[in-house]
Amino acid sequence: MANKEMYALGSQGSAIRELFAYGQAQATKVGKENVFDFSIGNPTVPAPSCIRESIEHILATRESAAIHGYTAAAGDLAVRKGLADYMNQTYDAGVGADNFYMTCGAAASLTISLKAIVEDPDDEIIVVAPFFPEYTVFIANAGAKKVMLPPDTDHFQIKLDELEAAITPHTRALIVNSPNNPAGTVYSRETMEKVAAILTKKSAEIGHTIYLISDEPYREITYDGLEILYMPAIYPDTLVCYSYSKSLSLPGERIGYILVPDSVSDKDVYPAVCGAGRSMGFVCAPHLFQDVVLQCLGKTSDMSIYDDNRKLLYNGLKDMGYDCVYPQGAFYLFVKSPEPDAKAFSDKAKALNLLIVPADSFGCPGYVRVSYCVEADMIRRSFAAFQKLIDQYK
Amino acid sequence: MANKEMYALGSQGSAIRELFAYGQAQATKVGKENVFDFSIGNPTVPAPSCIRESIEHILATRESAAIHGYTAAAGDLAVRKGLADYMNQTYDAGVGADNFYMTCGAAASLTISLKAIVEDPDDEIIVVAPFFPEYTVFIANAGAKKVMLPPDTDHFQIKLDELEAAITPHTRALIVNSPNNPAGTVYSRETMEKVAAILTKKSAEIGHTIYLISDEPYREITYDGLEILYMPAIYPDTLVCYSYSKSLSLPGERIGYILVPDSVSDKDVYPAVCGAGRSMGFVCAPHLFQDVVLQCLGKTSDMSIYDDNRKLLYNGLKDMGYDCVYPQGAFYLFVKSPEPDAKAFSDKAKALNLLIVPADSFGCPGYVRVSYCVEADMIRRSFAAFQKLIDQYK
Repeated sequence: MANKEMYALGSQGSAIRELFAYGQAQATKVGKENVFDFSIGNPTVPAPSCIRESIEHILATRESAAIHGYTAAAGDLAVRKGLADYMNQTYDAGVGADNFYMTCGAAASLTISLKAIVEDPDDEIIVVAPFFPEYTVFIANAGAKKVMLPPDTDHFQIKLDELEAAITPHTRALIVNSPNNPAGTVYSRETMEKVAAILTKKSAEIGHTIYLISDEPYREITYDGLEILYMPAIYPDTLVCYSYSKSLSLPGERIGYILVPDSVSDKDVYPAVCGAGRSMGFVCAPHLFQDVVLQCLGKTSDMSIYDDNRKLLYNGLKDMGYDCVYPQGAFYLFVKSPEPDAKAFSDKAKALNLLIVPADSFGCPGYVRVSYCVEADMIRRSFAAFQKLIDQYK
Repeated sequence: MANKEMYALGSQGSAIRELFAYGQAQATKVGKENVFDFSIGNPTVPAPSCIRESIEHILATRESAAIHGYTAAAGDLAVRKGLADYMNQTYDAGVGADNFYMTCGAAASLTISLKAIVEDPDDEIIVVAPFFPEYTVFIANAGAKKVMLPPDTDHFQIKLDELEAAITPHTRALIVNSPNNPAGTVYSRETMEKVAAILTKKSAEIGHTIYLISDEPYREITYDGLEILYMPAIYPDTLVCYSYSKSLSLPGERIGYILVPDSVSDKDVYPAVCGAGRSMGFVCAPHLFQDVVLQCLGKTSDMSIYDDNRKLLYNGLKDMGYDCVYPQGAFYLFVKSPEPDAKAFSDKAKALNLLIVPADSFGCPGYVRVSYCVEADMIRRSFAAFQKLIDQYK
């Protein structure tokens, strides 16, 4: 008498959540300082001061209804206008307020975008391994089929031949996530230009547009001065899904947006985004935080802390002999398991109170994800355990 | 290349939104003071002072991650525990933290609940006219069919014979909304006990549970000391959908919950609610406002303002000869159109800059909804126009 699929989704734990819960329980037994929890991607760097200042300013200067009342379904007009101006200044985006639909975070951005473009139960959405496991759930919610490209374990870019081969007349969209969770890599301009060429060619072949859904919650978290790509400039039929969870350390506040640029060829897509938001009950993103992000446009949390963590962890593990993917963005280090079964490797780590996530559920067996949005001191203290762990393989 | 159903939902305006937009445009022509906008249910009474005080207290006393970080998918444990304690003290509810799923507002509470219990495209959800028009959209999103009970225009309770006759082997749930938008009436204990008896009898007959989905955003907005019913005590298989939008004047902040009490016979329902939330991207309701509502449990906006408006409007219109439904709760006056076509009546009102919503889209032709969550002064100033309007029918 309950929906069986929803029951399964709600009762089955994720590998990440289980490890996190284990860590919390273990901390009460062996002491918090002896558990090295690298499982969760919850930002530890504080939100920038503008967040608190804007909340205080808004509370001090506006009437209750102007702070907490309904906004338009797509979001407050002044917020969307400010956002458009910012995107135009930063990326020469050529967008206006009506290109934006404010959402309740990254997950909402994705479920709404997918529901807006999926038309048929045979529709296929291509994801690139390794990928965020909830994509599977969101694609099912939209009533489509997931098609997975195998990981490019040489460079963690996109296997272009495999992409071309995976496209069928049922292909509706490709989801890319760069900077990538969990690989920590960034798709290069070269990669994305080649992807765009394939999507353009195949769209013509199959007789309908293949959308690019660019999931960009880590957009501003890149290192070594790496270029940030504005995807619609590379592929016109791009929907940008954004969230302020990571860039402003606001994951719990659920605030983000969908950008449907004018370059999207079908003018029905933006109204369909509005309709999909409405159908799931996603109208009017949280109002106070709409205004807060408007006042903090262009600001981010202190990313140098993640960069320091990155260097500390990458160099530390590399020196011990771990095979690590060089992290270009986000806050995850992707490490090759010294044995083929990453779950077994993760279990051996767990016995040392070292919590790292096997990447099987990310579509990339044989690797583990190590989140470095943690205290630098914990990274340092974890090195003895990491050393013991790799010694078992020598 | 966009989903046609979503496109239609996103591009078709609602009668309410259209009137509201007309009012805003008209105000620039004839002056704001000469437009009498009774179209929208956006609370005008300020949020109580505890809202601002709790935000300030939380900002002053907690670390960034504890304010803005992720909570558990179902909501922060301390928040759900506090909510359970409050419900136990107030309604003797016998609930715990694990009976609650915190949501992003009333719409989310409904879409998640429906998706959790609908299993089959033939499943039917019964709604009672007059009803909130978005129910139609939310039921379609869950993949079920809407079955509408005609309005009881004598008392605006529920036509029990019609309810019994409407139940089929496909019936999955009945949605009730009391205090009611748009009728402003409250279902009596007697009505709900009779509804419960019918649902119990018919559940046994058809061989599966019929759920009661109790949509209660107006729960605390009742007048004349009317009893507030705790629905699960009347019918055990009840899911309570709540939002703080109206009681705390926080419609833009999207904060509410689903309560699945232990009396719900199928223990899979709560996990299915968690799964449905996850599938649509609704995990972790806005964090700061989870904590704010915890600190404001039992508080409400100043309801005496709505009560004063209610008396002013009801008595004023009754004295002019309008046929009004006596309002027992919420902040809507339901008025019988003096001509059969409420749309034509609303158009005549519009010509006098009087914006009232024909109730056709609420499933109740021949009536209009007059929202009195407005300034009392506007009500007084509107009387001349209301008088002119009814004079046209004399």
